[in-house]
Formats: sequence, structure tokens, C-alpha cells
Amino acid sequence: MASTDMVKRMLAGSPQALARLITLVERDCPEAPLIMQQVYERAGNAHVVGVTGPPGSGKSTLVDKLTAIARSKGLTVGIVAVDPSSPFTGGAVLGDRIRMRQHYLDKGVFIRSMATKGSQGGLPQAAKRVVRLLDAFHKDIVFVETVGVGQAELEIMDTADTVVVVLVPESGDTIQALKAGITEIADIFVVNKADRPGADLFAADLATTLALAPASPGWMPPILKTEAHKGQGVNELYTALEGHRQHLTQDNHLVLRRRKSRRREFLRGLRDVLMDGLERRMTEDRALAELTRQVEDGSVDPYWAASEALKDDNIFQRLLKGQPE
Amino acid sequence: MASTDMVKRMLAGSPQALARLITLVERDCPEAPLIMQQVYERAGNAHVVGVTGPPGSGKSTLVDKLTAIARSKGLTVGIVAVDPSSPFTGGAVLGDRIRMRQHYLDKGVFIRSMATKGSQGGLPQAAKRVVRLLDAFHKDIVFVETVGVGQAELEIMDTADTVVVVLVPESGDTIQALKAGITEIADIFVVNKADRPGADLFAADLATTLALAPASPGWMPPILKTEAHKGQGVNELYTALEGHRQHLTQDNHLVLRRRKSRRREFLRGLRDVLMDGLERRMTEDRALAELTRQVEDGSVDPYWAASEALKDDNIFQRLLKGQPE
Repeated sequence: MASTDMVKRMLAGSPQALARLITLVERDCPEAPLIMQQVYERAGNAHVVGVTGPPGSGKSTLVDKLTAIARSKGLTVGIVAVDPSSPFTGGAVLGDRIRMRQHYLDKGVFIRSMATKGSQGGLPQAAKRVVRLLDAFHKDIVFVETVGVGQAELEIMDTADTVVVVLVPESGDTIQALKAGITEIADIFVVNKADRPGADLFAADLATTLALAPASPGWMPPILKTEAHKGQGVNELYTALEGHRQHLTQDNHLVLRRRKSRRREFLRGLRDVLMDGLERRMTEDRALAELTRQVEDGSVDPYWAASEALKDDNIFQRLLKGQPE
Repeated sequence: MASTDMVKRMLAGSPQALARLITLVERDCPEAPLIMQQVYERAGNAHVVGVTGPPGSGKSTLVDKLTAIARSKGLTVGIVAVDPSSPFTGGAVLGDRIRMRQHYLDKGVFIRSMATKGSQGGLPQAAKRVVRLLDAFHKDIVFVETVGVGQAELEIMDTADTVVVVLVPESGDTIQALKAGITEIADIFVVNKADRPGADLFAADLATTLALAPASPGWMPPILKTEAHKGQGVNELYTALEGHRQHLTQDNHLVLRRRKSRRREFLRGLRDVLMDGLERRMTEDRALAELTRQVEDGSVDPYWAASEALKDDNIFQRLLKGQPE
């Protein structure tokens, strides 16, 4: 079936069509850009909530509980669970995780897991596209949940309207590692497993760290304490999500945020398409293949060779011709 | 002073010239590729040892102790300490850390710290160049030490002949996060702070994980226990480093390893040069600027726009012209 038909069926509400489109888009198939453009106008209504934090901090449980609240209010939910840190085992483990999830059988909830599977850098972009498909599929809230705290996670969070960073009291060195990135991206902090010792001290430390960081205008990220497995504090978190969404609709915040995010996605898309062509051409193009051979042999410096290669208009022009049609 | 003169003085042994060249190369200044090409033939003799692992695992202390052993054998040492995780505070903190280091005043040891300072993706490449400069400066061993466990750290480790991954017994979730990447890159594992409870169990767990992973031919990564602050186990680690270096010189391993690493560096260099030109052109080139505006406005899908832009030969050709000379 042509992807255009599939798009129509998806927009008409077919979860099967959605699942197939996701697969095409995830794999960056040739028809993927057109699919995205075809659904694009229908997206933009969902509240996209990013949930990130170190492994074991209870993100999935929190998302499950938040989903239950949203469902009880009659809202539909999409969940994209991304694991950039597990290129080898990710797929299978996540598959299991999904089947264990609370809302797996609820038709108002669409869950999709994604893992790296060896691709470098492509996952954050693919995750954004899957989020947009769920948005176009008329989900009211789309949760995008990542495991870990690296660059890929930060990139994925870029697509969210509201970013929730989930921490646990004992994650002392985690907070060190996070510090740099989180004060920039977090809209809401959650200290989960707040029944554990040191939770209050941890939250206080976090508040101090935040007070030192430059806050975004008009929004001071709240720090909420939860015990996700008991459902404790989850209503307050849900209210905070609504509050942030409310904040975004004021003073053009959402428009500006999405504008920046779109620009970055465009730039990264350009980079990916360029790089695709490049790796192929490194073996196909004679001049570039020869230069690559010299680099591998160690007869020229790799960095110098790169800057030289792109001065050569001929190499460059041939690179262009290698772009996918 | 022309950079060519500085290169001559550096190769003649001037640490001042080295420091200035590092700065030029770190900042990716226009003369940097030529500098690298000029020193290139003089590099390749050092044993480049990468040391990575989670924050607080004691990497710096280990590197200090290993440096002391190397110095006692009459070898010279370079240390590049990279902190990709701290774009905001990195520089200053690392600066302090360096002044506290044991070998700061030893002329046989050259120490340099590097932190992100807001640049995305450029740090790993810059770190490789700094390592190569220290190599060309005739350091016998160059340690490149990273903080954290993300993609940037993996990329930096790519430049090492021998990769040491340092863990601590209590880093339970760290090992989860690392699993994917480390079994691929580690040549030697260190369980530091081995006096802490759970060290033996942790090492046993690690051994089990490794046994399941595909090992590189002819080399099974040893797992060593150390107490770096007491110097315990450090001699054994030094011997393991020598053992791995020995292994590399057999059966062409080092040649193949460096060949692959050079190819990847070339590819990443091409990517960086392309992207440099791209971001500039996004505002300068009229057609691309117009497309960017549409993306920001939300009237076209960013992913679709990226794939369209690079089909347009005119946009592409103008992008080329924007390459640095």
C-alpha cells in the first residue's frame, strides 16, 4: 500500500496504519520525509511531555500513573519510550518492559519503544518524528521517556513542550553529571522514591543549585516529591504539567519554544542527509576514496584531510550528486 | 609569530610553543588543520591510554599514580583531562583540579584540561588533536582522561591505543548505563575503591557480563582491583597497560586499530566542516534562509524540509562556496 493511503488511514484513526508509518519513519525509509510532511498540519495540538533522568529513577512508573490520571479525564495518551544507551539489548528489553506496562491493553493509549540498534545519532531525530506522528494521530498528551542522561537524551527532550527530570535521593553523582544539562532543560523536577533517606536534603540541594542557575523568564521549575509506585504526589505532578502548559500558552512561550526546536531539528536533518551521502561517497567517489586511503594509511592527518577535501569543489560537487532523491 | 615557526619550536621541545599550538588547535582556528598536518609525521610513537568511567570513580588519582610509575622509569607523560559533561562550570573546576595534581610542577609531565564551553560535538575532535600534539611533542605516554560515560567520552576513547574503564563497587546503575558501550571499548577494567563493600561481587558481575560479550580477537580485558589513593594495585595496572601495548604490536593490531580510528576521525572532520558552513549559510543564503523561516513558522515539516533542501542543487552548490578557505 502506498504510504499516502496509509497516512489517510492513520489520520482517520487506524492504529495499524499508525504502527506501519512509525516503522517507516523510524527506519528513515525514502518515503519518510513525505509522510512527515503529509501529517505535519495535523500535528501540534498534543501536549508533548518529556520525562528523563537516570536509569532506575522510576520514570516508567511515573508515566504510567500520569497516564492513568489523563485517561480518567477522558484524554488519550501516546507514550514513546526511548533507550539510547542500549544499542545491543535495548529492543528486546524494552519490548518486555512494554508488555508489562499498565496501559498496554487500553486502546486510548498508544505505546511505542525505540532503541538505538547500532545507529549513531539517528535515534533522537527518529524519536521526534514518532512523537509528531502520535501528535498527528490526535493523542492529547504524548509522553516521550528516555533512559539515561547523555547527549541523545538532551536532544530528544528538545522536542518536548514540558520537560520533567526525575531524580532519586541517592543519585549523588548523577546530579553532578546532570547539573550542566538539566538546569537548562528541566521545567519540572521530580524527586522520586521520596520515602528514602536523604530525600529532603537532596531536594534542598537541588533547590540551591537551581537558585544559582539562570532561570527561564517567568517560570521557576518546581521541585516535587513523589513515591510513584504508591501513586504519592502524582496528582500534584499532573497539576504541575497542566500549570506549565498554561504558562506556555501565555506570552508566546510555546510558539517561541517550538520555533527554536524546529530550527534545530531542521539543522540536524540537514546534517544527517549530508552525512548519509558522505559515507556512501567515501567509497564510491574516486578522489575521496583515494584521500580516505591516505588517511587510513596514516600518510596525511585526518583533520587536515577533511578541511582539504571540502576545499576541492570537484569532490564536493560529486558529493552532492550522491544525495538521495 | 607564524604557526609554522611555532610548530618548529614545539618540535624542538618548547612547552610554550606547544601550549600556544594547543590553544589554536582547540579553538579550531583557521591555521589548525595545517598545524596538524605539519606535526603529523612526528606523532604516532606515544602509547595513548584512554581512561574513562563515571564521575567520582577516581580516574585522576589513578592517572597520577600511573604517571609516577612512568616517570620513575624515565618516561615522559602527557595528560589531557576532558570534561564533556560540564559546559558551564567545566573550565574553572578543571583548572583547580589541575593545580591540585601531583605532577603539576614536573617538567616531564604536560597537563592540559579541556571542557565543552558550549560547543556541541566539537570537543571529542579537539581532544584527539591535542592528544596528537602531545604525541608529536615526544611524550612517551599520553593519558586522555574523561569524566562521565556519554557519547562524547566514547568518541574521545576512540583515539586511544588502550582504553581503561574505571568503575567503583557501588556504581550499580552506572554499570547498567555503561554496559552497552563499555564491553565494546574497554581493553582493561579497573574496579577502584576495591576496599569498599561489594567489590568482589561487583567484579564477579562484571566478569559475567564480559563473558557474554563478543571479545576482540586475542585479548580478554582483564579486571583489576585497585585502591588508587593508597597506590594499591597500581603497579599491576601499569603492567597490564604494557601488556596491552605489547599485544597491540603483535599481528598488526595497532595498525588496524589506528587505521579505523583515522577513518572515523576523517569522517567526523568532514561532518564538522560541512556543518560549520551550513549554520552560517542558513542565514546568509537567501533560499536556505527562506526555507529556515518556513520551518520556524511551522509551515513545513523540518525533516521534510531538510531532505528537500539537499535535493536543490542550487542551495547545495551555494553551501559549498561557503566553506572556509
